[in-house]
Amino acid sequence: MRFIDIIEKKRDGKKLTQQEIQFWIKGYVDGAIPDYQVSALCMAIYFQGMDNEEIAWLTDAMLHSGDIIDLSDIPGIKADKHSTGGVGDKTSLSLTPMVAACGLKVAKMSGRGLGHTGGTLDKVESIEGFNIALSEEQFKKQVSEIGLALIGQTSEIVPADKKLYGLRDVTGTVQSIPLIASSIMSKKLASGSDTILLDVKFGEGAFMKTPEEAEKLASTMIAIGNHLGKDTKAMISNMNQPLGNAIGNALEVKEAIATLKDEGPADFKELCMSAGAIMLMQGKIAQDEASARAMLQEAITSGNALQKLREMVIAQGGNVNMIDHPEKLPHAANVIEMKAECNGYVKELDALKLGTLAMLIGAGRRVKEDTINFGVGIVLNKKDGDYVEKGDILAYVHTDTPLSDEWIEDFYRCFVYSDTPTQKAPLIYKIVK
Amino acid sequence: MRFIDIIEKKRDGKKLTQQEIQFWIKGYVDGAIPDYQVSALCMAIYFQGMDNEEIAWLTDAMLHSGDIIDLSDIPGIKADKHSTGGVGDKTSLSLTPMVAACGLKVAKMSGRGLGHTGGTLDKVESIEGFNIALSEEQFKKQVSEIGLALIGQTSEIVPADKKLYGLRDVTGTVQSIPLIASSIMSKKLASGSDTILLDVKFGEGAFMKTPEEAEKLASTMIAIGNHLGKDTKAMISNMNQPLGNAIGNALEVKEAIATLKDEGPADFKELCMSAGAIMLMQGKIAQDEASARAMLQEAITSGNALQKLREMVIAQGGNVNMIDHPEKLPHAANVIEMKAECNGYVKELDALKLGTLAMLIGAGRRVKEDTINFGVGIVLNKKDGDYVEKGDILAYVHTDTPLSDEWIEDFYRCFVYSDTPTQKAPLIYKIVK
Repeated sequence: MRFIDIIEKKRDGKKLTQQEIQFWIKGYVDGAIPDYQVSALCMAIYFQGMDNEEIAWLTDAMLHSGDIIDLSDIPGIKADKHSTGGVGDKTSLSLTPMVAACGLKVAKMSGRGLGHTGGTLDKVESIEGFNIALSEEQFKKQVSEIGLALIGQTSEIVPADKKLYGLRDVTGTVQSIPLIASSIMSKKLASGSDTILLDVKFGEGAFMKTPEEAEKLASTMIAIGNHLGKDTKAMISNMNQPLGNAIGNALEVKEAIATLKDEGPADFKELCMSAGAIMLMQGKIAQDEASARAMLQEAITSGNALQKLREMVIAQGGNVNMIDHPEKLPHAANVIEMKAECNGYVKELDALKLGTLAMLIGAGRRVKEDTINFGVGIVLNKKDGDYVEKGDILAYVHTDTPLSDEWIEDFYRCFVYSDTPTQKAPLIYKIVK
Repeated sequence: MRFIDIIEKKRDGKKLTQQEIQFWIKGYVDGAIPDYQVSALCMAIYFQGMDNEEIAWLTDAMLHSGDIIDLSDIPGIKADKHSTGGVGDKTSLSLTPMVAACGLKVAKMSGRGLGHTGGTLDKVESIEGFNIALSEEQFKKQVSEIGLALIGQTSEIVPADKKLYGLRDVTGTVQSIPLIASSIMSKKLASGSDTILLDVKFGEGAFMKTPEEAEKLASTMIAIGNHLGKDTKAMISNMNQPLGNAIGNALEVKEAIATLKDEGPADFKELCMSAGAIMLMQGKIAQDEASARAMLQEAITSGNALQKLREMVIAQGGNVNMIDHPEKLPHAANVIEMKAECNGYVKELDALKLGTLAMLIGAGRRVKEDTINFGVGIVLNKKDGDYVEKGDILAYVHTDTPLSDEWIEDFYRCFVYSDTPTQKAPLIYKIVK
C-alpha cells in the first residue's frame, strides 16, 4: 500500500477502505507517513468528505491508536458530555455536579482552550491546587466514590488525534465534519463512558457557522456512536453570543458557582437544565424530561449540586475555600466599566470577537505555548434583546493591563443595535437523537 | 502575514494577492514555511484553482527564486521549446538541430525522466561523454557559435520549482493546471530565450488526459508568457500512443538520427516539421508555414540538420562516432520479437502501459534514485491503423534481463484490435496562439 495512492483516491472523490484508513493512522502515529502527506490528505477530505462508514472506521482507527479506559467495574451507567466549544461555555462546571448530585456517574475528560474558545481544564485550574492529572486508577476510584471526576486527556488516550489535530490546526483543515467528528468521538469513546451527550454549537463564536452545519456534524457523530455501540445524543445550541455573562477563567468559575446557587444567568441555567435532563434520561435515572428537570432543580435548591462540586474540588486537591468564597478566586487588578455610547436595543453580540478580546487581555491562548491569566476577562451586563441607554454599563472588563484604543474600539463594535425592540434568539435550536 | 491565512483563503476559493504568493515562495525556499503547510495549500489549489493573474504572479515568484540566464548578448532571436512529456518523445533530439540548421539560435534546458515518461537529458547521455552540465558561460558561447546547446536545469535555476515539484510528486498535487503551468513557465522564462513553443500532450500517456484539458493548460501557459512579455505558442498533440516507434534512451537517439536522415517514422517527422515551422516563424526566419517547411526539409535533405547535431555532440564532449555509427550506441544483450497472437486492425495502443513496461526493464526510473540502462527499450513495429496478422512482429523488445510472464501478458494487453479497418488518430490536434 502506498500513501500517495490513498491521497489521490480521496482527492478523486472515492471511498477509502477500512484497511487504507488503518494504514494511514497507524503509519502516521508510527512516523512512517510524514506530515506533508497527511496534510494533503486532510485537505482532500475537506473538499471530498467521507461517508459515515469511513468516518466510523477513522474514529475506530484513532480510538485504537492508544489506551482505552475501561470503566466497566464501576457500577451503573457512566455518562459523558462534550461541547464543541464556544465563548463563555462553562457548562461542564455546573452541569456535571448537577447530574452527579442526581446519582449519575460522570467520568469527564476535558480539553484546553485555544484562540477565542476557552477550555474547561483552564477554567478549573483557576481553582488553586486543582489537579487535572489523575492516574487512571485515581480517576476510576473517584468516579466510583463521589460520582464525579474531571481530568485532562492523557497522552496515552488517542495519540493519533493529538498529532493529527496539531497538524490540522496549522494547515487549514480543522473545519471538516469527518475530521471534527472522528476527533471528538474517538476521544469520547476512549474515555469509556456508556452514554455521550454532545452539545454542538453554531454561530459566529463556534466552529460551525449555521444550525444546518451543526446538525450535520451532530448527526455524523451520532451515527459513529451508534455504529460503535454507544448511546449518543446531541443538542444544537446557539453560539452567536457568549453563553451566560462571564468570559474568562476564574470569572466563569464564579458564574458556574452562582448558577449552582440558582443565582446565575437564565440562558446558562437553561442550557444546563436541558442538557442535564437528556443525560439523566440516558442514564435511566429519570423517565421523562419533566421529572428530570424536577430532579435537577431539587439538586440546586437543596444545595446538593454545589456540594458535589465541593466534593470534586476537595478530592482533586483544590482549595475548596475558593468555592465557598468565590471572591478568593484569582482576580484582576482593575475592573473597567464599559459604558454604552448610544441608545437602542441590542440586536447582535459578536461572540467570536468578544472571545478574541478576552484572549488578548490574557484570558486565552493565541498559540499553544501562551500562559493564561486566570483573573482577567469580560462580564457582560447587556445581551441581545436588552434595551440600552447611553451611559448604561454594557460590560465590566477585568484586566491587569491598560486597554488599548484599538481594543476599546473593537469592543464597541461587538454590539449591534436596533431602534425597535428585538427578540432573544432561542438558545437551544434542536435536540438530535 | 500568516501562512495559515493564505491556505484558508485559497481553500475558501478566494484570490491570493501577489504579496501573498511572494510570501509563500520566498518562505518555502528559505525553509520558513514547512512542507506540511505547502502541501495543504497545493491541495487547496488543486480544488479551487487560480486565475491567470495569480498563476502569472506564482510563475514570477518562482522565476525570481533563483538565477535568470541572460542571453541578450547573443545576437538574434533565441528560441526554446518544451514538451509536457510523453512516451517515445525524442522531439528535442531531431527538432533542435533542424531549426538550428535553418539559422535559429536554440538554447535548450531539458529534464530527466520519471515513471513512464522519458527525459531528454537521459536520452542524450546515452551518447558516450555527452556533458549536460555546461557552465552558463559555456552554454552561451556554444549557442552563439554553433546556434545550439542542450543542458540540464542547474540547481541555481528556479530552486522553488525543484522543491515544490518534489513535494507535489508525493502529495497527489501534480495534476493541477496552475501548478503545472507555473512550474513549466518559470523554468522556460528563467532560461532566457525570446520565444517559447510548448508541445502540450494529451492522452493516456500524458499528464492531461483529454485535448480539452491540454488546451486549457496551453492557454494558461500562453497567458503567462504574454503577461511576462515572451512570444509563446503551443501545439496540442496526441499521446494516446507512443511518438514514433522507439521507447528507450539509445533506441530513441537512433530514431532521432534516422529522422535527420529522412529515414524515421512519419508521425515523428511530421511533429518535428510542424513544431519547427512554428519556431522558425517565431524566430522571424520564415514568413509562413510553407516556406518554413521547405527550409526544414532542405535542412534534412542537405544533411545540415544531422551536421548540426554532430556539432553539438562534439561541442559538448560526446562521442560523435556514435552519431555516425548508431550501432555503436549502448545496446541490450537480447532483442526479443513479440509476435501477434491474433488478426485484426490495431485500434488502440496503451502509451502509458508501454512507457511503464519500458521503465520496468530498465529504460526509466521508478523512483528518482534509480539508474537507467541506456540500451534497453521497446521498438514498435505496428501502430494504430495497422493491420496485423497472427505471427506478425508487433514490437522488438531490447532487454538485458528475461521478460517475466506478467510483463509479457501486460505487453499484449497494450494492443487493442478491431475487426474492421481503423483510422490513425491525428497526431496534432490544434495549434494555440
